[in-house]
Amino acid sequence: MTPRRIYVHDVAMRDGLQIESQFVATEDKVRMINALSRTGLHKIEVTSFTSPKAIPALRDAEMVLCQIERLPGVCYAALVPNMRGAERALECKADELNLVMSASETHNLCNTRMTRQQSRRVLADICRLAEGQSAINLSISTAFGCPMEGDVPVAEVLALGDWFVKEQGVGRITLCDTTGMANPAQVERICQGLVERWHGVEITLHFHNTRGMGLANVLPGLAAGIDHFDASLGGLGGCPYAPGATGNICTEDLTHMLESMGYSSGVDLDALLACAAQMPGLVGHGVPGYVLKAGKSDRRYETPADFEQTRARAQGRI
Amino acid sequence: MTPRRIYVHDVAMRDGLQIESQFVATEDKVRMINALSRTGLHKIEVTSFTSPKAIPALRDAEMVLCQIERLPGVCYAALVPNMRGAERALECKADELNLVMSASETHNLCNTRMTRQQSRRVLADICRLAEGQSAINLSISTAFGCPMEGDVPVAEVLALGDWFVKEQGVGRITLCDTTGMANPAQVERICQGLVERWHGVEITLHFHNTRGMGLANVLPGLAAGIDHFDASLGGLGGCPYAPGATGNICTEDLTHMLESMGYSSGVDLDALLACAAQMPGLVGHGVPGYVLKAGKSDRRYETPADFEQTRARAQGRI
Repeated sequence: MTPRRIYVHDVAMRDGLQIESQFVATEDKVRMINALSRTGLHKIEVTSFTSPKAIPALRDAEMVLCQIERLPGVCYAALVPNMRGAERALECKADELNLVMSASETHNLCNTRMTRQQSRRVLADICRLAEGQSAINLSISTAFGCPMEGDVPVAEVLALGDWFVKEQGVGRITLCDTTGMANPAQVERICQGLVERWHGVEITLHFHNTRGMGLANVLPGLAAGIDHFDASLGGLGGCPYAPGATGNICTEDLTHMLESMGYSSGVDLDALLACAAQMPGLVGHGVPGYVLKAGKSDRRYETPADFEQTRARAQGRI
Repeated sequence: MTPRRIYVHDVAMRDGLQIESQFVATEDKVRMINALSRTGLHKIEVTSFTSPKAIPALRDAEMVLCQIERLPGVCYAALVPNMRGAERALECKADELNLVMSASETHNLCNTRMTRQQSRRVLADICRLAEGQSAINLSISTAFGCPMEGDVPVAEVLALGDWFVKEQGVGRITLCDTTGMANPAQVERICQGLVERWHGVEITLHFHNTRGMGLANVLPGLAAGIDHFDASLGGLGGCPYAPGATGNICTEDLTHMLESMGYSSGVDLDALLACAAQMPGLVGHGVPGYVLKAGKSDRRYETPADFEQTRARAQGRI
């Protein structure tokens, strides 16, 4: 039986780097993205077209997108929160504009400085502008809870997605657990029936590992038939509105889990781990990923030096 | 509907401390166990009756077990690998002797210095010795893979458990992922039908978070009807035969996940977090648990100082 294909998206260069205080040199970003391109990842979110004042870490968005090699079969996406960002991303020929707005009003105001109503209008305008030039993905932030408001009604999340899918023709939707509030029972509740509801739409889940449940949350997503997942190399990431929050789920840990479960990620895990090994040097500090430190599950250890003695002594006792 | 009850066992004082290079003072161990007793945990593994030379960190096993307060409703367990350990544990009136042997020959030789055949005989003798004095749990190490041999046939794990359940009358079995090799698909395969196979037996799963999949592995266990889980406060732990391997799944992270999913753990999570907060001081270094750092999922954050201005400006734009 052919294993089920699961698509892994890396967002480290955007969601990971945006919160770093140290600026990563453009050529280092380009080199990392070029290396990631060769691992078999389905999509790489390479930067964000936000205000350079708001996110100085990604002030080189144009240069990154124009200098990277574009490999066929890899989707090079850029985050876009507003019209100015969309114009910049289209100039650089991003394969995908990843539009972002929050399901909760407070987070949307904090993150985009617009009301949700304003974001809807602006993002709808961007959909029209991008037609024939670039694919559109809509990322719904705080879909599993808002760090300021708390619970976000599922009906509101779904209605927001419905509007973009049915009224604006958006073909790709990401539900984002922006600050790691989701739990597996909740993911199951939200995702059940989603594939049917948004038939033909590429649905992605975006989890953070804030409370250690990141990979656990992937499982009910898989069970609901969703097969695209965002993750961040090394587990880099965080959220400016939730201090203390750890990063995205880790790309190499996710890939390792999927492959060990028998799914096909299309990713060369060893090549991915080689990229992850560069991350601490790139950002100047350790990263939270597990497999990088422990090795893959199939790693074998030598027996202790006195093993043959131990065995002989035990067998002599019989 | 009454939420399903899930039983959380803490093994930090045994599986966690056994690998620490720094000796934790007996009175500090006793104080921590007494605090854990008041959190609502079902079981606490308080120490190990192994050779003080092999595991100096737990050389005070007798003193710990004799000095702790015993609260009704809490099971105070001690690990026991051989007859001498059993005699010591029975003298101290441990509620439960947690017998241990490995499913793989190499790991069993390394860990107990006996062949599996010898371990079976010794542990069966202990079962008879303990009758009427103490409950018996059998922990099967390397049930999900051996760090030296690799794959361990499921049939061997099940046959080993069968023999103890059916021939020796053991009423409690723990399947241990000793070095964090398990993945959720494998847990599902092994655990499916286990509750029926070992009818009436208290079945526990013991996971490590070595590759970040620890909490993910709990989910197929829950789905298979298993409702006892080992975990370690702060996520302390490791394995002497697998350097680099991170600790057990974290007790407070597990409890947080279970409660957020709607299960009833019977544990006061805030009291448990207060215990976890003492762990870095106890062992002299940071611990890997997530919820301790990020706060619970229901933690709320203040809006930024300029939020009202942002909102007024956005609304003025309409």
